[in-house]
Amino acid sequence: MFILITNDDGIHAPGLTALFHELKQRGEVAVVAPESEQSAVGHAISLSHPLRVKEVDLKGGGRGWAVNGTPADCVKIGVAEILPRLPDLVISGINLGPNVGINVLYSGTVSAATEAAILGVKAAAVSLHTYQDADFLEAARVFAGLLPRLQQWPGWGNGICLNVNLPAVPGDKIRGVRVVRQEICPLVERFERRVDPRAQIYYWLAGINDHRPQEFDTDYGSLQAGYITITPIHHDLTHYPSLRALKGLIEI
Amino acid sequence: MFILITNDDGIHAPGLTALFHELKQRGEVAVVAPESEQSAVGHAISLSHPLRVKEVDLKGGGRGWAVNGTPADCVKIGVAEILPRLPDLVISGINLGPNVGINVLYSGTVSAATEAAILGVKAAAVSLHTYQDADFLEAARVFAGLLPRLQQWPGWGNGICLNVNLPAVPGDKIRGVRVVRQEICPLVERFERRVDPRAQIYYWLAGINDHRPQEFDTDYGSLQAGYITITPIHHDLTHYPSLRALKGLIEI
Repeated sequence: MFILITNDDGIHAPGLTALFHELKQRGEVAVVAPESEQSAVGHAISLSHPLRVKEVDLKGGGRGWAVNGTPADCVKIGVAEILPRLPDLVISGINLGPNVGINVLYSGTVSAATEAAILGVKAAAVSLHTYQDADFLEAARVFAGLLPRLQQWPGWGNGICLNVNLPAVPGDKIRGVRVVRQEICPLVERFERRVDPRAQIYYWLAGINDHRPQEFDTDYGSLQAGYITITPIHHDLTHYPSLRALKGLIEI
Repeated sequence: MFILITNDDGIHAPGLTALFHELKQRGEVAVVAPESEQSAVGHAISLSHPLRVKEVDLKGGGRGWAVNGTPADCVKIGVAEILPRLPDLVISGINLGPNVGINVLYSGTVSAATEAAILGVKAAAVSLHTYQDADFLEAARVFAGLLPRLQQWPGWGNGICLNVNLPAVPGDKIRGVRVVRQEICPLVERFERRVDPRAQIYYWLAGINDHRPQEFDTDYGSLQAGYITITPIHHDLTHYPSLRALKGLIEI
């Protein structure tokens, strides 16, 4: 099994390092990841500046390729230019912080997996539900333990990737695994208005993580309840139920 | 009717200017748009740098707010901080070049509309099928002519926005209007490998527009055939047909 690992926290992020050392016990692993943090870049790709690729040492041993681009760029250039052959699997993560609900749209981690699915490769985005004291070694073990079961699913790879979120607790404290839909409620957001030393106003987007209780049958709700969540996602944004109604009204 | 206009080509792009002058004949119009070109930024938002907002003169008269961020940032900060009230409508464009097929994922233009839909506002992304000699005045007239019919659709706004693509021909040469799904085939891409004056290698992503004939029942196919295309899109990426199969395999 030939696995490509990428992420959006950057090639030296501990979540990627842990995943690399765990997965290399199970196959051949290549790392192509952003040279710097690329959180919330969504499905951005680089058109107006060129990409550069640099071979670097990974923490704890091994080599990887650092790219001055986005996670989606890394998957594209990894497959097209860097890797000797198409990977069997692309894993993006492990992200510091969950990628559930509306955040899935903004997530560079998830977009790397979507990009791989577009290219016809099985892919998963893996995120950990904490922003501090993350135990990525444990998270990597938990995900690797889940992987053989995921690989039994024949639907994986046909343009569909998996968005996996892990509770930040030891494996034996996890309540189970749930396959759930993406939660779609708007985030509770606000902008912090500040004044810089030159008396100019600027704004920080703040509070994008909402802590309301969520419906259990969603990624957000089940993750909050202590479960691993898996959401099959795809890149066809068409809202099919609206097609017919709108056709009747518009196509005259 | 209070309309917010944004785009991803930047606040001084001619597609936005044409749209502004056309729509201000039909309602109150505010412009909040990126200060510089933001093509292919997808649904990126700015978390690691603060946003600044600058009031600027628009070409041909009028004022707008230029933001040092992405299209999605512009919608968020427009609604939260700049506009006196929630707009009735958000129009993103008119984009130089089509946004159909897989390109929808990379499109900042479309993401601005999606962001508005998340915030509960009716929104449309509007793109013109040419990269040169674009007649945005004509395109703006054609889109404005279509708008009353779109507004009759009761489904618009409930988390669903419209992705509109216009053929680059005079209005009386357009073959009709089609409501179609997003095409989902992978793009034909390659990277151009070059060497800089310091003997370092760099890469340009090239050839992302594919000119194969496409299925007529898709955005790409119908646009190629000379029709205006309208695709209702949403931000729930869940692949529902896979939920049950995967549940049976994983939730044990």
